[in-house]
Amino acid sequence: MPTISNKGLQMPASPIRKLVPFAESAKKKGIKIYHLNIGQPDIKTPDTMINAMHQLNLKVIEYSHSAGIESYRKRLTEYYNRYNIALNYTDIMITTGGSEAIEIAMMTCLNEGDEIIVTEPFYANYNGFSMQAGVKVVPITASIENGFALPAISEFEKVITKRTKAILICNPNNPTGYLYTRAELEALREIVLKHDLFLFSDEVYREFCYDAEYISAMHLQGLDKHVIMVDSVSKRYSACGARIGALISKNEEVMQTALKFGQARLSPPTFGQIAAEAAIDTPDSYFKEVKDEYVARRNYVVDALNKIPGVFCPMPKGAFYCIAQLPIDDCDKFCQWLLEEFSYDNQTVMLAPATGFYSTPGFGKNQVRIAYVLNVESLKNAMACLQKALEVYPGKTN
Amino acid sequence: MPTISNKGLQMPASPIRKLVPFAESAKKKGIKIYHLNIGQPDIKTPDTMINAMHQLNLKVIEYSHSAGIESYRKRLTEYYNRYNIALNYTDIMITTGGSEAIEIAMMTCLNEGDEIIVTEPFYANYNGFSMQAGVKVVPITASIENGFALPAISEFEKVITKRTKAILICNPNNPTGYLYTRAELEALREIVLKHDLFLFSDEVYREFCYDAEYISAMHLQGLDKHVIMVDSVSKRYSACGARIGALISKNEEVMQTALKFGQARLSPPTFGQIAAEAAIDTPDSYFKEVKDEYVARRNYVVDALNKIPGVFCPMPKGAFYCIAQLPIDDCDKFCQWLLEEFSYDNQTVMLAPATGFYSTPGFGKNQVRIAYVLNVESLKNAMACLQKALEVYPGKTN
Repeated sequence: MPTISNKGLQMPASPIRKLVPFAESAKKKGIKIYHLNIGQPDIKTPDTMINAMHQLNLKVIEYSHSAGIESYRKRLTEYYNRYNIALNYTDIMITTGGSEAIEIAMMTCLNEGDEIIVTEPFYANYNGFSMQAGVKVVPITASIENGFALPAISEFEKVITKRTKAILICNPNNPTGYLYTRAELEALREIVLKHDLFLFSDEVYREFCYDAEYISAMHLQGLDKHVIMVDSVSKRYSACGARIGALISKNEEVMQTALKFGQARLSPPTFGQIAAEAAIDTPDSYFKEVKDEYVARRNYVVDALNKIPGVFCPMPKGAFYCIAQLPIDDCDKFCQWLLEEFSYDNQTVMLAPATGFYSTPGFGKNQVRIAYVLNVESLKNAMACLQKALEVYPGKTN
Repeated sequence: MPTISNKGLQMPASPIRKLVPFAESAKKKGIKIYHLNIGQPDIKTPDTMINAMHQLNLKVIEYSHSAGIESYRKRLTEYYNRYNIALNYTDIMITTGGSEAIEIAMMTCLNEGDEIIVTEPFYANYNGFSMQAGVKVVPITASIENGFALPAISEFEKVITKRTKAILICNPNNPTGYLYTRAELEALREIVLKHDLFLFSDEVYREFCYDAEYISAMHLQGLDKHVIMVDSVSKRYSACGARIGALISKNEEVMQTALKFGQARLSPPTFGQIAAEAAIDTPDSYFKEVKDEYVARRNYVVDALNKIPGVFCPMPKGAFYCIAQLPIDDCDKFCQWLLEEFSYDNQTVMLAPATGFYSTPGFGKNQVRIAYVLNVESLKNAMACLQKALEVYPGKTN
């Protein structure tokens, strides 16, 4: 039998995947599970997108241009203008989700063995994309004590080597909910210029900024050759399944090279692009309503968490995640125990062990990521479960 | 300014891309161009798919399972049963087009530096996917004289090394239209078993077999651990833009590993999957009509080509391409000249230089690929253009 590849062996499985069989068993026992483990919002996709499919007027579902439908790319420049990001449509390549934008950005900019600096905890799939590209992730650890603020620039200086090619940030941040300040982004700007690095900025949670200003990496001066913005309609319109993202840069060589990878895979999905183009006309009222809803959920969940003895959760300023520190020995064991052995009123809660978001072994062991993607009523039940669970969990630490 | 990657530099641009500016200039001069250069059919997508979008009944466009929507995978087993391919739905992973299936198959099975044997001429993007995966393409040249039949197995034996990990075939073949015989596939089976190789079989043109029997690599005995079938709905339903393909294997380790790559990119497109699931109920009459149409086009175009002095085109038995040998010095120059300097009755024809489908430098210089994706009336005009062009082309060789 022929053997599979080394990359295939080393490729990390989804950090929450190993919990799925336990969730399925619990469901079979009739236990209701509150899924706070994944970023799949329950928010309705706007009518603009659904109507675009209902009114689809095509005889042939053709390939689009490899960089995406031109009219969509042009209308996207309007969208970015609302955030004071001035783009030409040729600065935008449409991708199959934000995922493909990161994959292509890595292949475009980094050689096998090059290093990319990422603050941890970070979106777990960055590991997978790095593995695919043969790129080494170099983590710098952010701290829950200061709400996962950007670590000191001296920490970046310490790990920069001749192989360092890029810094990757996610802003607003998944999984921490942190929103980078202007001062932090300016500090990143300086180190990127000093060492001539690429700055990959994953800004797919732009619409979800609370109590603070959103600043894009595209707003930074003098970084036109350095910044690659990764974007997606998945969270913006609660349309994760549309698989429409974008790779955006003012560096022409990057865009030309990215397009070669884009041509090999022919084109991004046509249906999703048509829906996403229509979504640009989604009324402001939709976003206001969604944002109000997330603020209410966040306020409820963070308050409830901090009221549980031994729990600490900093207040996130963006996205729809928070990382909570729990009085537990091991989050992987705890999250499995919640599904396998615990229930309260025939209900339990599924959380993501934070270890999957750290690259440094052993870090995040007493933390979990909570996605507040359910309504407040469900969150109340979920938090009640968590509180009860922490009272009886055998691996409790205080 | 930070530099782009070596892979990015080496990544081949689409072989027809360099001709696009010349086509655009010709159009600006008011010249009508018959596009026989790309595999974008003019055939209508079946109503089943369009209606599925018109009747879309979803509130939230969610991620699907990373391996695809379960009900779709289950219904696909019915589809494959019609071709006597017996599958469990877990043997099927839905991908973003056939392109992603090849990318994931390569990453799953081959290490950087491993070799894959492909008969040339071959689908040009295999080069791009190999470049991405760091895999070396080892070509074995098929000959236009015998209609691009499988080269002798001794030719395969000659190039097999310790790094050879897989053989990749496309059946029915793009760009040659060749359909492998049972004897040829049995010969491949033996060499695959003898050297314990993977056999990647790209069968996206299954519906387009003329005058001869379609035999799948999945029909070969004893190759369950070796065969990975690549599939797509793009050509089957003239739905290239849906970007729905599949990676299919009975090798569980391959499927489990492929799923890890699939999880990193989250899921294939939801809209396209819903349309593709509905497409399984497309009536036979649709395929009969489409096939009759392609047979008429093929018969017309191959006959017309062979009537032009100095032109030779073997009769393809599948897909909707043919490779023609022309009395010309250089197909790249000729195809550019057709767009830049030639017109007949204010019309011209766009062809794909065959050099882009060969990996061996200099091969295919007097060949072009013709996609018979236009109706017979348009093909008549296109062939008239080609005949006139060959009368006056300065680089004519006989």
